[in-house]
Amino acid sequence: MSLDAVLARLDSDLPAATERLLDLLRIPSISTDPAYKAECDRAADWLVKDLQSLGVEAEKRPTPGHPMVVGHVDGPKGSGAPHLLFYGHYDVQPVDPLDLWDRDPFDPAVEETDKGQLIRGRGAADDKGQLMTFLEACRAWKAVHGEMPCRITFFLEGEEESGSPSLVPFMKENAEELTSDIALICDTGLFESSVPAITTMLRGLLGEDFTITGPSRDLHSGMYGGIAMNPIRVLAKIIAGLHDETGRITLPGFYDGVPELSEEILSQWQGLGFDHEAFLGDVGLKAPAGEDGRLPLEMIWSRPTCDVNGIWGGYTGDGFKTVLPSKASAKISFRLVGTQEPAAIRESFRAYVQDNLPEGFTVEYRTEKGSPASQMSIEDPAFEKARQALSDEWPRAAAYIGCGGSIPIAGYFKTILGMDSMLIGFGKDDDQIHSPNEKYDMESFHKGMRSWARVLDALARG
Amino acid sequence: MSLDAVLARLDSDLPAATERLLDLLRIPSISTDPAYKAECDRAADWLVKDLQSLGVEAEKRPTPGHPMVVGHVDGPKGSGAPHLLFYGHYDVQPVDPLDLWDRDPFDPAVEETDKGQLIRGRGAADDKGQLMTFLEACRAWKAVHGEMPCRITFFLEGEEESGSPSLVPFMKENAEELTSDIALICDTGLFESSVPAITTMLRGLLGEDFTITGPSRDLHSGMYGGIAMNPIRVLAKIIAGLHDETGRITLPGFYDGVPELSEEILSQWQGLGFDHEAFLGDVGLKAPAGEDGRLPLEMIWSRPTCDVNGIWGGYTGDGFKTVLPSKASAKISFRLVGTQEPAAIRESFRAYVQDNLPEGFTVEYRTEKGSPASQMSIEDPAFEKARQALSDEWPRAAAYIGCGGSIPIAGYFKTILGMDSMLIGFGKDDDQIHSPNEKYDMESFHKGMRSWARVLDALARG
Repeated sequence: MSLDAVLARLDSDLPAATERLLDLLRIPSISTDPAYKAECDRAADWLVKDLQSLGVEAEKRPTPGHPMVVGHVDGPKGSGAPHLLFYGHYDVQPVDPLDLWDRDPFDPAVEETDKGQLIRGRGAADDKGQLMTFLEACRAWKAVHGEMPCRITFFLEGEEESGSPSLVPFMKENAEELTSDIALICDTGLFESSVPAITTMLRGLLGEDFTITGPSRDLHSGMYGGIAMNPIRVLAKIIAGLHDETGRITLPGFYDGVPELSEEILSQWQGLGFDHEAFLGDVGLKAPAGEDGRLPLEMIWSRPTCDVNGIWGGYTGDGFKTVLPSKASAKISFRLVGTQEPAAIRESFRAYVQDNLPEGFTVEYRTEKGSPASQMSIEDPAFEKARQALSDEWPRAAAYIGCGGSIPIAGYFKTILGMDSMLIGFGKDDDQIHSPNEKYDMESFHKGMRSWARVLDALARG
Repeated sequence: MSLDAVLARLDSDLPAATERLLDLLRIPSISTDPAYKAECDRAADWLVKDLQSLGVEAEKRPTPGHPMVVGHVDGPKGSGAPHLLFYGHYDVQPVDPLDLWDRDPFDPAVEETDKGQLIRGRGAADDKGQLMTFLEACRAWKAVHGEMPCRITFFLEGEEESGSPSLVPFMKENAEELTSDIALICDTGLFESSVPAITTMLRGLLGEDFTITGPSRDLHSGMYGGIAMNPIRVLAKIIAGLHDETGRITLPGFYDGVPELSEEILSQWQGLGFDHEAFLGDVGLKAPAGEDGRLPLEMIWSRPTCDVNGIWGGYTGDGFKTVLPSKASAKISFRLVGTQEPAAIRESFRAYVQDNLPEGFTVEYRTEKGSPASQMSIEDPAFEKARQALSDEWPRAAAYIGCGGSIPIAGYFKTILGMDSMLIGFGKDDDQIHSPNEKYDMESFHKGMRSWARVLDALARG
């Protein structure tokens, strides 16, 4: 009965909730680019104010990078309900290439389309729209009941899209304050439009940002071409050699700690009916490019990968310049699974690069980040309660799934705070997160907040 | 006697000549970048005015791109002296990376160094300083004699650094006006500081500027990494596969028309005492990178090459963005020798790229330029006269040499106007043309104009 009132409140308040989200989306909180530092700060202030309006004791907490937003609110006294921690991030990805956007990424709007209403703008899905689903559920609960269903700690980060440099130190310094019974993380997706999901398997991430230097200055390719080795050629050879003909990654020791899936999980995933041709076809691709002999879902969820995220060197402007450049650079990232160790893989990668440098060439690395994969213990009954609550809201039952992306926070909650995490989110495959024209379906936003109301209700009943 | 007066005049007028060159260097006539169109025009106007001050009937002649400067002046009547055409170019290379320049590239200056005076600025050596050596020789001749030593046609281009798109049509339309007895081209170098040279072997050039497209939009590497093929990987494989382990280029048919050097030329080049370790050491390199079993001078002068002049794709800004990009691009150029055909090599390259594209990937090309190599007929006695004149000016005798760079104009003079070309220039290996901190030695400038006075004297005596 009381849940129904909260759901009804969410339905009637949807237009106002949408306006609140659009307001937050207007803040260009791009964390990776120092030019947007003040905007990240502004997004944190916005959230502090919004949490305070829910009766949460919230504040902006400084870090050497962008601030954390931390808030606390009590639930009913003596209810025996668990203490929950909610995590989301208010920072967003850069917007380039800007000319591929159909609108200003920071002038968001609700668009009417034949697939229904979409909220368009940078951060709509990743992660501002998602984190607001939880805040809206709390707002409605508070409006109906005058208080929260249980004690909740809010923990909102501003550096998720830029490697979270301040996260681990902050969690260690504030471990006691942050530790709760279980963490709720809203930064993942539905399995498909009608199938909600709890993500229980997350790939880790190791990034290498590096520059190879050959000649001490840019050379004229007419004068030096043929006798001077070109650093772009060296870099191309390094990248080309990272995969063999079967799609396996060639670094020695790379597959140490990569588990094979159990027959049970394999058959469960086969049963999900994942249409990889449609998945690839949506983005203009035809054939899967991963390791030979693997299921497409394995390639995405449970196999490690290596991708080049960026490359640059030499003359890249209009026209032609016959330069033989001094330097060539790339950003390469590895998605990790099982117990693959980021440090060991970084060492193997750097040894491989060194082996491929011609005499006199040097390499310089700019990044040191790395996080292992993580796997939730779904034996905790809270998982089954949440799965049931999600199944009540959506047309089809909720599934436990893997995730190709890295959400290192879940690993940190486990290792630093000793907490399990429930990764529940409402994003869709076509949300274009990290790409131009990012959007969040109004259905995701609306059913997302309704889902959280149901999950809060189920968990609070203890 | 009269030559001595001209040489003396050049010596006494050197400060004024230097000021004239600095004035021309202040014009940022970057031809490849449309933003500098007006500046190219201004450089052409400057030259028209300067030629007119020499009594040359000069004018700016429009083309679909940057204008040509064409001028005519008669020599003594009935002298039997040959009609010369002088060619140079007034456009310059882009200046990036700007932060590697020690001064504003277009605020040139004479610097006192322990290697003597240097003229520093973009275009100091390539080609404004060089072309002014000829104009200064003419100016001094005119001052001493009241007229030129022979009939001279001036032909100054503004698109040499951007593929000369207007050159061939212009030469064809004005063939009668431009045809002379022999062309003098000042856009090459000394063999080394004390050894002047006439370049008689020039490599051709074929450039390919292209973009590979895979996914229809940028993807999140967490969501698609492992299953979606990355266009940077495809591009890296294409580049890495262009050379085999011995440094040979792998394109089918690439070596068709590549001649082996005669024993005579080989031993002549061995006798030049080229110090490839010092040549490479000057730019921070150790080992030659060309084909196994070739002389370093062969690699630079008489072997074909393939270089990547630029590469870009994905996220290249600060920080990390785990994008799996939609596109990857490169600018690749081939230096051609002998009778290698640009069109055939382009076809072979494009077939190779096509063979390496995964299903559904596409490629788009932006350039079509190509010029074959050329070789002068040094049996013409004018070559020997010029070689002797150069030997008189410099400490050591002049040599006939090859050149790694492409100067397509020499080929066009032959094929369109039926003229041989004498390529005489005074650049040095450390001039840093096409690079930051380009310079031209005051010695090159001063002895360059004196050299031209001697060559004009030798040729005019018939």
